[in-house]
Amino acid sequence: MKKINVGILGATGMVGQRFMEMLAHHPYFNLKVLMASKDLVGKPYSQVCNWFISREMPKEVCSMLIKEAKPEAMSNNGVEIVFSAVPADIAKELEPKFALAGYKVFSNASAFRMEEDVPLLIAEINPDHLELLKAQQQSRRWPGFIVTNPNCTTIIMTLVLKPLLDNFGIKEVLVSTMQAVSGAGYPGVASLDIIDNVLPYIREEEEKMESEPLKILDADFKISASCHRVATTDGHLEDLHISLAKPVSIEQIKKVLADFGKDFKKLSSSPEKLLIVTDDPMRPQPKLDRLAGNGMSVTVGRIREDSVLENGVKMNILGHNTIRGAAGQSILNAEFWAENNLNYKSI
Amino acid sequence: MKKINVGILGATGMVGQRFMEMLAHHPYFNLKVLMASKDLVGKPYSQVCNWFISREMPKEVCSMLIKEAKPEAMSNNGVEIVFSAVPADIAKELEPKFALAGYKVFSNASAFRMEEDVPLLIAEINPDHLELLKAQQQSRRWPGFIVTNPNCTTIIMTLVLKPLLDNFGIKEVLVSTMQAVSGAGYPGVASLDIIDNVLPYIREEEEKMESEPLKILDADFKISASCHRVATTDGHLEDLHISLAKPVSIEQIKKVLADFGKDFKKLSSSPEKLLIVTDDPMRPQPKLDRLAGNGMSVTVGRIREDSVLENGVKMNILGHNTIRGAAGQSILNAEFWAENNLNYKSI
Amino acid sequence: MKKINVGILGATGMVGQRFMEMLAHHPYFNLKVLMASKDLVGKPYSQVCNWFISREMPKEVCSMLIKEAKPEAMSNNGVEIVFSAVPADIAKELEPKFALAGYKVFSNASAFRMEEDVPLLIAEINPDHLELLKAQQQSRRWPGFIVTNPNCTTIIMTLVLKPLLDNFGIKEVLVSTMQAVSGAGYPGVASLDIIDNVLPYIREEEEKMESEPLKILDADFKISASCHRVATTDGHLEDLHISLAKPVSIEQIKKVLADFGKDFKKLSSSPEKLLIVTDDPMRPQPKLDRLAGNGMSVTVGRIREDSVLENGVKMNILGHNTIRGAAGQSILNAEFWAENNLNYKSI
Amino acid sequence: MKKINVGILGATGMVGQRFMEMLAHHPYFNLKVLMASKDLVGKPYSQVCNWFISREMPKEVCSMLIKEAKPEAMSNNGVEIVFSAVPADIAKELEPKFALAGYKVFSNASAFRMEEDVPLLIAEINPDHLELLKAQQQSRRWPGFIVTNPNCTTIIMTLVLKPLLDNFGIKEVLVSTMQAVSGAGYPGVASLDIIDNVLPYIREEEEKMESEPLKILDADFKISASCHRVATTDGHLEDLHISLAKPVSIEQIKKVLADFGKDFKKLSSSPEKLLIVTDDPMRPQPKLDRLAGNGMSVTVGRIREDSVLENGVKMNILGHNTIRGAAGQSILNAEFWAENNLNYKSI
Repeated sequence: MKKINVGILGATGMVGQRFMEMLAHHPYFNLKVLMASKDLVGKPYSQVCNWFISREMPKEVCSMLIKEAKPEAMSNNGVEIVFSAVPADIAKELEPKFALAGYKVFSNASAFRMEEDVPLLIAEINPDHLELLKAQQQSRRWPGFIVTNPNCTTIIMTLVLKPLLDNFGIKEVLVSTMQAVSGAGYPGVASLDIIDNVLPYIREEEEKMESEPLKILDADFKISASCHRVATTDGHLEDLHISLAKPVSIEQIKKVLADFGKDFKKLSSSPEKLLIVTDDPMRPQPKLDRLAGNGMSVTVGRIREDSVLENGVKMNILGHNTIRGAAGQSILNAEFWAENNLNYKSI
Repeated sequence: MKKINVGILGATGMVGQRFMEMLAHHPYFNLKVLMASKDLVGKPYSQVCNWFISREMPKEVCSMLIKEAKPEAMSNNGVEIVFSAVPADIAKELEPKFALAGYKVFSNASAFRMEEDVPLLIAEINPDHLELLKAQQQSRRWPGFIVTNPNCTTIIMTLVLKPLLDNFGIKEVLVSTMQAVSGAGYPGVASLDIIDNVLPYIREEEEKMESEPLKILDADFKISASCHRVATTDGHLEDLHISLAKPVSIEQIKKVLADFGKDFKKLSSSPEKLLIVTDDPMRPQPKLDRLAGNGMSVTVGRIREDSVLENGVKMNILGHNTIRGAAGQSILNAEFWAENNLNYKSI
Repeated sequence: MKKINVGILGATGMVGQRFMEMLAHHPYFNLKVLMASKDLVGKPYSQVCNWFISREMPKEVCSMLIKEAKPEAMSNNGVEIVFSAVPADIAKELEPKFALAGYKVFSNASAFRMEEDVPLLIAEINPDHLELLKAQQQSRRWPGFIVTNPNCTTIIMTLVLKPLLDNFGIKEVLVSTMQAVSGAGYPGVASLDIIDNVLPYIREEEEKMESEPLKILDADFKISASCHRVATTDGHLEDLHISLAKPVSIEQIKKVLADFGKDFKKLSSSPEKLLIVTDDPMRPQPKLDRLAGNGMSVTVGRIREDSVLENGVKMNILGHNTIRGAAGQSILNAEFWAENNLNYKSI
Repeated sequence: MKKINVGILGATGMVGQRFMEMLAHHPYFNLKVLMASKDLVGKPYSQVCNWFISREMPKEVCSMLIKEAKPEAMSNNGVEIVFSAVPADIAKELEPKFALAGYKVFSNASAFRMEEDVPLLIAEINPDHLELLKAQQQSRRWPGFIVTNPNCTTIIMTLVLKPLLDNFGIKEVLVSTMQAVSGAGYPGVASLDIIDNVLPYIREEEEKMESEPLKILDADFKISASCHRVATTDGHLEDLHISLAKPVSIEQIKKVLADFGKDFKKLSSSPEKLLIVTDDPMRPQPKLDRLAGNGMSVTVGRIREDSVLENGVKMNILGHNTIRGAAGQSILNAEFWAENNLNYKSI
């Protein structure tokens, strides 16, 4: 397979670093261009990046020089795909420029997620939404395109909702989250705010969890989310309560979850199991389960009846917020696009 | 007011220490007897107690000698009330002996909470349940009695449910907790289990939260609880979702909560406000709010509509688990009994 | 005693909040003026201050309005003393303006600490350094003056060094610190940097610990400091190794430390004991000992021989970094000045 | 190379789990027998082990059945080497039985470390100490033998001291540690003792750090150690102060450290670099550096002059306490023995 050259927008942040780590040794994405804020331009990545990942920075990227965040930065590099890990306000301005310049943008930013002609993609769930790109390219007159992936908590939850929706129908969802500090970027959450503490509010997070899954799933059930920040570094834990459309046994639910994705054609970054179902009452735990499937699996445990909701089931689910919940999903989305040979217009 | 001599069963544990702190300077409870496990008998409290409270151990109790945990330990001390902070299995065996010997036992243990003739008391909510004591004393032939207080998470939640139930009616409750490690006693939760982690399960906790409030409130709505342990030292945070019996505005709810307990006759350990209602979206927080009202108030914040439940409202509530959630409630219960001059049989 | 009106420069920061707490109920300092950055001017304190202290914000100060940080802000308020809790660069510019306008500035900032004519004061140690003020006022033509207090780690250490120096002489000191995150202000240390971690470096901290004690003590022994940041909220723990000028027994050292300050005339904010000497091998601990003496005492434990240094002794010492290590020391210094009726020029 | 069958004594503890992880895929050690406490015998490892490592339990070992901890457990398994990860008191009793039965015991326990005829081995430092085994086997009449590895903090420190001793000579060492909770085993440190806290004492730890390095290095300089427990999961950070025998530049010291071990013949578990020398003032950090060299490297940073000690240098060093500081060193020691074909008597 021919290698595809890629660039990263926002290479030094929390999500940018995960992109770097996953792309440094990717089988067919070839990391060519790192873009970051102006004051870092011209400096080697190892010098400007405050690396947070416990595994060492891949040697291949240490000496790569930062380029300015504009399409011209990539001329003569044969770049085809741009992964975006910049904040929403910057994405709003920059990503269209790259799409206009012909690049395929796979973005982790929220700026365009809810626009009608932009796929909000979880490759394993709604790959057909890539069809939206035709309209997007036509109406916006972009030779390139923008594909987004959902918010971290949404990705983790929607991977669990999808098989339940397909098999049993869903009437209502309540979810209460315990989210890791890496989700707020760096410097993000102040240590004085989180040592011996929990924060009961995360700005704009509940709104995303209550709307994004419905777009992804083409569904219209109601979701009520309560989002909390706890003193974990990585791994979002969610307490999920679901009212199903019909009565089902706990065993049926476990089976449907454990089987989910078995027929999905494995991509390069796909984990062995999409959902890992455990019967251990003490799991999932952020510390022990966030790296399951190299951070690409979601672990589901404590599946039991919810006595309040009609046909109610409750469970704890956990996924790695900056891998499956961000960079990893973006890469998986791009892999799906690339491996299915989707010939949209390109440069 | 004449002082009432009291003893403590289990004086060295987490809850025992809170009893010690609150009773050392109590206006009319006079701490006379400390009882703990056999191997500690005869030693001064300061020597055997691994004191966990950041305020210093009250000087008054440092040199008190530990006595054996049996009714005979109190002879010649004029003790009338025994506060119990021992584990459920020990309480099961010991507390009846004290009741049989004529002592009024106010217990924090779960052993007798759900027995029909035992009051499960939150003095501000169901003081009339003390009426059960007549039957208890008669049928069990106890000259003394046992009054219990609920589980920590239950006390905190039920104080919020009570005014909502009285004013609007409650149809359903879902609650997801983020509980402090002090709730597990000492040594309790291992540091390896909780640094950079959340535990998704607390043994027997959900069962208590789903049953105890109904006994206290003489109600029969359904409760679904999910209990989690987080890396906080003190203060249980709860994410509470309630379906009310009729439509109500958020402002009405806030008013009813803020007004709760205003007409309740203040006891010695009563806080100025039972419930503190805040509009700050970042509150309540364990670190900042657990000591509100000297640990006896419950702080309620993020009160907002729950779009899923019928007439739904959701909010975060927080209380100090070993003060209001344990020793403080027990003392308040005893104060109510004492200050209302309830003349049940005694020694 | 007539009340003395005071103002605070930098009322909203970590140290500013401790000033607020300690001054709200001070017996003779009367809090009149709060100054903070321009964008906060005109707003009530409770609205602009992200309050971090677990005890509630004193009611007296909630509605006080923020004023601009300039001497004119205090006209018509009869203010005599200004407590300064602003960063060094701002202090450098602002504090002289207040001194020039006739105010007595008691500053926690490092800007002027090492200037020859500025007292670096720990009232219990070098009150005679206030004599420097005469020269200061004369040469700088200030009707007011600036008195500084040392860096947090320095204050804690120097309180322990003083009695050892006086009684036995000191040849050398090595100190390794484990400092709380509140020492870095807010937002300060990012949670991603400190959860499950230790930082081996604190900018400019070692330099201060190696120079400030020598100015305070009028001494010239050598100090080697290594400063580390750990995941505690408050309370700096120091591992202290001292080479004394002559052989002394551990018992003599304990006695000298325990007796230190007994003959010092108590000020309003003085703790009962300056140094608390403990024989418990597990003490001092930040969580349990930082509030000793209302945060104004230093706890000393694990006093034992150091086999490497000549006449060597090693020990762990702990103090509250924003109380004794900052605001508390500044207030104590002002109390000493006020209670000794030191009639330097004034407005 | 022919595979060597090995057994593990104490397979379920913190260090036991690291042995399991490193041996599951070892190139020539073949894991045959897991031994643990009696009540676990007959059960599969995955069922009885509370696995703490964030990477998943190796599939190869999940179904292995626990055997009783006695030499007979290994009959018919062709086991030659036994790795021991049991507590000192159990090691004292059990390890000689295995040596007597002809097994080569590589032990992480402290029971026999300081015995004259027992090698206290860091393969890269004192491989010649294996010569002691001849005397050991003869005098104790053991067909097998016992080789021990040092305490975790000692291994990390001694790897840094060795090149300094060889090149410049060492006169004195002072060391202050900030140790991770995994060093105390499981359940080990209670969360109530370490959240928002530091413990200033670790039982018997300072004694080991002050004596073990001298045996390993055949040296007699003095060491003064102060050991502290901080809220990190893995990775011991040490603040090291060394008085060298002659004046040396910081650059010379860095070079000697960076070059250490380059001529040491790589073993299967050897890291690429024994010591990683960094100029980043914010390193080493437990979270970022503990897994350097797969947990087998020691990272050294903040190398600078110590103004107090004669020819003084100070630095921070960090190593993974259960990998390089325990199981990893034991395996490396066994690899050295095996790869050098040391033909001591065997079964």
